Amino acid sequence: LRLPAFVSKTRSEVSPMIEPARSAHRFRAVRSRSVALCRPLALEDYSCQPMPDASPPKWHLAHTTWFVEKTFLALFEASTPATDPTYDYLFNSYYESQGARVARHLRGTLSRPTVAEVLAYRQHVDERVQQVIERGLSSEALAALELTLQHEQQHQELLLTDTKYLLGTQPLRPAYDADDAELAAEHRPLEASVGDWLDVAEGLRELGFRGDGDGFAFDNERPAHRVWLRDFSIRKSLVTNQEYQAFLDDGGYQRPDLWHAEAWAVIEQEKRTKPLYWTDEGTHYTLRGVSPRPPHAPVTHISYHEAHAFCSWAGFRLPTEAEWEVAAPSLAWGQRWEWTASAYAPYPGFRPFAGVAAEYNGKFMVSQQVLRGASFATPAGHERLTYRNFFPPTACWQYSGIRPARAFA
Amino acid sequence: LRLPAFVSKTRSEVSPMIEPARSAHRFRAVRSRSVALCRPLALEDYSCQPMPDASPPKWHLAHTTWFVEKTFLALFEASTPATDPTYDYLFNSYYESQGARVARHLRGTLSRPTVAEVLAYRQHVDERVQQVIERGLSSEALAALELTLQHEQQHQELLLTDTKYLLGTQPLRPAYDADDAELAAEHRPLEASVGDWLDVAEGLRELGFRGDGDGFAFDNERPAHRVWLRDFSIRKSLVTNQEYQAFLDDGGYQRPDLWHAEAWAVIEQEKRTKPLYWTDEGTHYTLRGVSPRPPHAPVTHISYHEAHAFCSWAGFRLPTEAEWEVAAPSLAWGQRWEWTASAYAPYPGFRPFAGVAAEYNGKFMVSQQVLRGASFATPAGHERLTYRNFFPPTACWQYSGIRPARAFA
Amino acid sequence: LRLPAFVSKTRSEVSPMIEPARSAHRFRAVRSRSVALCRPLALEDYSCQPMPDASPPKWHLAHTTWFVEKTFLALFEASTPATDPTYDYLFNSYYESQGARVARHLRGTLSRPTVAEVLAYRQHVDERVQQVIERGLSSEALAALELTLQHEQQHQELLLTDTKYLLGTQPLRPAYDADDAELAAEHRPLEASVGDWLDVAEGLRELGFRGDGDGFAFDNERPAHRVWLRDFSIRKSLVTNQEYQAFLDDGGYQRPDLWHAEAWAVIEQEKRTKPLYWTDEGTHYTLRGVSPRPPHAPVTHISYHEAHAFCSWAGFRLPTEAEWEVAAPSLAWGQRWEWTASAYAPYPGFRPFAGVAAEYNGKFMVSQQVLRGASFATPAGHERLTYRNFFPPTACWQYSGIRPARAFA
Amino acid sequence: LRLPAFVSKTRSEVSPMIEPARSAHRFRAVRSRSVALCRPLALEDYSCQPMPDASPPKWHLAHTTWFVEKTFLALFEASTPATDPTYDYLFNSYYESQGARVARHLRGTLSRPTVAEVLAYRQHVDERVQQVIERGLSSEALAALELTLQHEQQHQELLLTDTKYLLGTQPLRPAYDADDAELAAEHRPLEASVGDWLDVAEGLRELGFRGDGDGFAFDNERPAHRVWLRDFSIRKSLVTNQEYQAFLDDGGYQRPDLWHAEAWAVIEQEKRTKPLYWTDEGTHYTLRGVSPRPPHAPVTHISYHEAHAFCSWAGFRLPTEAEWEVAAPSLAWGQRWEWTASAYAPYPGFRPFAGVAAEYNGKFMVSQQVLRGASFATPAGHERLTYRNFFPPTACWQYSGIRPARAFA
Repeated sequence: LRLPAFVSKTRSEVSPMIEPARSAHRFRAVRSRSVALCRPLALEDYSCQPMPDASPPKWHLAHTTWFVEKTFLALFEASTPATDPTYDYLFNSYYESQGARVARHLRGTLSRPTVAEVLAYRQHVDERVQQVIERGLSSEALAALELTLQHEQQHQELLLTDTKYLLGTQPLRPAYDADDAELAAEHRPLEASVGDWLDVAEGLRELGFRGDGDGFAFDNERPAHRVWLRDFSIRKSLVTNQEYQAFLDDGGYQRPDLWHAEAWAVIEQEKRTKPLYWTDEGTHYTLRGVSPRPPHAPVTHISYHEAHAFCSWAGFRLPTEAEWEVAAPSLAWGQRWEWTASAYAPYPGFRPFAGVAAEYNGKFMVSQQVLRGASFATPAGHERLTYRNFFPPTACWQYSGIRPARAFA
Repeated sequence: LRLPAFVSKTRSEVSPMIEPARSAHRFRAVRSRSVALCRPLALEDYSCQPMPDASPPKWHLAHTTWFVEKTFLALFEASTPATDPTYDYLFNSYYESQGARVARHLRGTLSRPTVAEVLAYRQHVDERVQQVIERGLSSEALAALELTLQHEQQHQELLLTDTKYLLGTQPLRPAYDADDAELAAEHRPLEASVGDWLDVAEGLRELGFRGDGDGFAFDNERPAHRVWLRDFSIRKSLVTNQEYQAFLDDGGYQRPDLWHAEAWAVIEQEKRTKPLYWTDEGTHYTLRGVSPRPPHAPVTHISYHEAHAFCSWAGFRLPTEAEWEVAAPSLAWGQRWEWTASAYAPYPGFRPFAGVAAEYNGKFMVSQQVLRGASFATPAGHERLTYRNFFPPTACWQYSGIRPARAFA
Repeated sequence: LRLPAFVSKTRSEVSPMIEPARSAHRFRAVRSRSVALCRPLALEDYSCQPMPDASPPKWHLAHTTWFVEKTFLALFEASTPATDPTYDYLFNSYYESQGARVARHLRGTLSRPTVAEVLAYRQHVDERVQQVIERGLSSEALAALELTLQHEQQHQELLLTDTKYLLGTQPLRPAYDADDAELAAEHRPLEASVGDWLDVAEGLRELGFRGDGDGFAFDNERPAHRVWLRDFSIRKSLVTNQEYQAFLDDGGYQRPDLWHAEAWAVIEQEKRTKPLYWTDEGTHYTLRGVSPRPPHAPVTHISYHEAHAFCSWAGFRLPTEAEWEVAAPSLAWGQRWEWTASAYAPYPGFRPFAGVAAEYNGKFMVSQQVLRGASFATPAGHERLTYRNFFPPTACWQYSGIRPARAFA
Repeated sequence: LRLPAFVSKTRSEVSPMIEPARSAHRFRAVRSRSVALCRPLALEDYSCQPMPDASPPKWHLAHTTWFVEKTFLALFEASTPATDPTYDYLFNSYYESQGARVARHLRGTLSRPTVAEVLAYRQHVDERVQQVIERGLSSEALAALELTLQHEQQHQELLLTDTKYLLGTQPLRPAYDADDAELAAEHRPLEASVGDWLDVAEGLRELGFRGDGDGFAFDNERPAHRVWLRDFSIRKSLVTNQEYQAFLDDGGYQRPDLWHAEAWAVIEQEKRTKPLYWTDEGTHYTLRGVSPRPPHAPVTHISYHEAHAFCSWAGFRLPTEAEWEVAAPSLAWGQRWEWTASAYAPYPGFRPFAGVAAEYNGKFMVSQQVLRGASFATPAGHERLTYRNFFPPTACWQYSGIRPARAFA
């Protein structure tokens, strides 16, 4: 089995809410992809946690299954068998309403259940879901099912980024899959010229997801609302490896004036001198192994702190998420998450999902920065113009890059 | 000597940029107040640091003096004697351009220089400044001088809040000054009824400091710019002790669903069950000692996390800083800093101060929340409608309270 | 394949230095047992590190092999191929002379090399060793070979105790091997009566390993030397689960007066209330899974701190290692390591091994306590009257128990 | 007022148990010396804690007073007024039987009570004690009183070493008293030649305090008991600054083979390259300020780890405490505490003091090393041949040095 394409052809399509007839097929397709993504791994990789933020692949496989139990089966299965209480403890990520759980940084201490047991757990849950689907789904059930799949797709991206971190920080630096041709896209150079900018005129714009019943969006993308934007310019291309190298060569990691105070404290304490995965020899680690850094490819695996410091150095700034969303239809986007200058906060009139999923987004709306766009690792069809990704400003193991903005010239 | 009034009569006046003729007088007045604020202290209090965020009073006295040296004397004194390099090391707060410094959490390990030596240092620097003033000030020098005074006033507020923390967390809980009548204002009940709300209609509004040469504002308040605001309601009064007590009585500190995820982690780890300075017996610590909590006074010393959780419980939300600034002229404000829903970020077109002061504001524009208003401890004349105070979401030792907002009813 | 017996029939035999002719056989036998010990594990268990002190099974398999390379092949193989430098980095435990190494607490982040690769590494090294053996061994080479085997045997015991910790702290509490009849010996009740004591009269005694060329002993067991012992009594049996339960029932874990100061700090910080592996329901975790605690079996997995506190409560004390060694020939010993009152220190005239093995023992001779005897998990033939085991006073995941001593009645 | 001499003329006298008639005088003399020792300090120094192990001078003054209350007044005063419960909380050092207390590392956060209040507390308690003395003391009361004075004397030594650390780590490096002539003794060169060794023949020796009712000794010095000693040589002089410099010059702090494993971890983590108080310029900090290091004076402020590493380098070893006690009558000792190779453990037959003082010594008998001798800072008459001082192997802020031992030549 080959991986499905990571990037869809046309970014303009919004993934439509699936019709009942297609549910079973879509459920199987999405769920099976998680397992497929793990296929290049050694069994030893599945349970390993290289840092607190990166979960073991096995844990992703189990947690997403547990999520299906809690947010779909618990509500729509006629007679739900009790979940194994140990699984509740093991595979709850952060849902306080679902009780105690293994501390996040200890997920790598769980050798059991085994991978085979987790795969059996997946299969058992999937069969139960398909029985429910066969009996027919109310629109409510259909929406709940879709949430489990969107959730699964988010974890598929994390599966790849966590796996890249796991393998890329092994002293032996093994490839994820050295032969997979599609992985070459991971660091594909840009087509746009770094000199091209888009000018956007001042005015009142609309932000957020406008769909009603049609199409899925997370609670954090709603409601649509107006914002006033000053005129601004945004670059058509992302910052390249070559540009970022110039920042390094100019002493970027030795100049505190370019960094936020808390960023500089990290630089000093962790003795950071370059992006994650960069080596001193002009190479970097990719899913196909260590390879030369293409100078014209977008710099990737950049933290918000790094993105800000680079912009300070270059005389640019990061766009706000409103600027990004307004400009994006005129830009090529989708192979890197793009850090924005916006802290993650509720839109005016924000209402969280109901039930278990109330904890999905709202409780993280502090101390995080928004990323927009999509990445090489985002499942096809999961990306969306209004999508709000978010990570702490130190996070650098995602496929995150830099798109410069500046005042209207 | 009595303390000058903590709160000005009329909040509507903006502190005007002082004229050259008044400079010497104003300089003496502001500088001497810092020393006056320390007068109720025991000498033992001056060097003590009760937590990493609260600096010793002696350190405030010395650092503000060092700041005058670095940002005024270094530029405008004819022949500047070299600063004692040890003082550079001891009294630099966070200015990377000024070299190495004592780690913030170790300020309490500095018994030397003594208080007498620090006061002599203040006097020496003040005399040098007055000689410069006597020779006449360019407008540039006048602006630099004003910055040192605004800086001094910010530290005066910290001096009081740090001192309150120092004394209030001593097992003996001594009063700062049990007899000072003016300190009664610290927890004065509100006049506005908790039921009154102000409705503000949707529209394009202007935010930020509009003055040109006239009047002082920090770089972070500029430039003025437009924002689109949906209609909203904001309460005319702050949340009271009684209302916050109801939140406690309803199990507010035991319900993770009300808190941000990172806030809940703090609650659990530090076993927080009530605001700082509240005791179990219906009293709280004030600058006049432990006393009953007035039920109708605004709840104070609240972290952003607590403010958010209270609002979640009560069905309110916090206002954004834009909403606050638009509504404030129609509200009574000024005895509590008011947490806003806005993360601290640059205004569009933000340009930092030049020189040493470039590090004043901009480098903190991540992972902090904005507070608006002013407090009991803010020096008279220092408050301003466009003033942007900021602290991390955990900070609770400032005079910070909660003003509810909500959707237009 | 069944595990070889964990405990030898007669403890009085000292493992004789093997003759050249038997070397190949003994090498194969010892080396293959390490692999056999891992056979009941799931592959997921091999790379997992449940706490900093417990190494992953895979790491034990690889490290012991690396040790053979460094202390035998590097010296006695005609032309030694270079060791993979990454393996040096990965599988060096604590040998400063051998360069940098993975931090101990990060061994669980190593998913690679895989188990299959480690087993291939073992086989490759073993074949090289056997070629060297076939060519004939000098007495020096024979001694070096024996050290690698003694080292391997020490790791076999750790393999079992680390594995027990790994499995016993999994929320699912899987058995290591629920069907292995020999594992029943793990918690076999004692035969001696708890009331029997051995009295030893005052006098000058000899301590330490007396053998010259015959028989193996570590450097820390030498030289033999005299000590003066006051008369003392030592109990013929170890403290039982029942006796330790009485200590718990009497509030032993709530009484600071029974504990060393640093022990009590641990009790308070980690909220310890009972031995590792004990549950609240009268059961404990064993290699065959959770099972009832036999009241008359020796209490096991006890830290030095716990052993001391128990003795303080019971009116006993721990024996010194000299007392233990003098009394042991008249006692039944060998199924539990026995904590002694002696800190780990060099014997008078101590001389460390030469070469790489200089770091084997001496550099740990501070802040550790000596244990004497042997355990259920000690490979048959590896135990010895003069053997000095040592662990920090907090260590409790070894098969460690308590033998009381007291003044002559 | 001048300080009393730090060192008595003749070390051979053992401080006799004072007779009732002399009690009041001795009590006043000892107690007043603590206050006298603080006289050179600035008031700012009294409350300052430069590291967790070094208590503020004010705390020493208060704690020793609290100890008098708890171990003398509580038992022998007719009607004891209740101790202020806050003082119990503030000034209990480590007595679990006396309830909760301020965490050791937070003693520097206590600005209150003020120094004046602590001195008043001392005076109040001293007056109560003198009233009890006037009414006549039983031999039990006399013994309890003596314990409070021995305790006070121990804190006098800590007062000086903690103060030296406090002042010596201030960036301004102030002198304690630059003019005090007696302080010159702090680093007085040795008279004995470094080449002279004392040979001690093998045999059975007696160790520990032999006195019955006459003379004070701590519980940890009893009972006297026999030990068998091999013949050994011990150097008549301590290691000098010059010798230790040679160790540095030979790369001593870069050679892991010379250090215990846990010592090397400290060297690496804290980047230690020389003894505490040594500067790079051939000077060191003394109580009279920074001054040249006398090459022939004993090296001081050495940790056990450093003492061991030096001996490893020089081909020596540290003596055991038994060796030290046997040899000391033939040696000049008393201006440096001398690290021994012995871990701190109970003597055979050890029985702790009764009552509150049960926690005085026994509970620290793990993970510490014994020092023998006395130092410049030891109050005259407090030193004793059988005295057992103890500190963790990392401690270096005491007046600790190195006396080499070796096998009989």
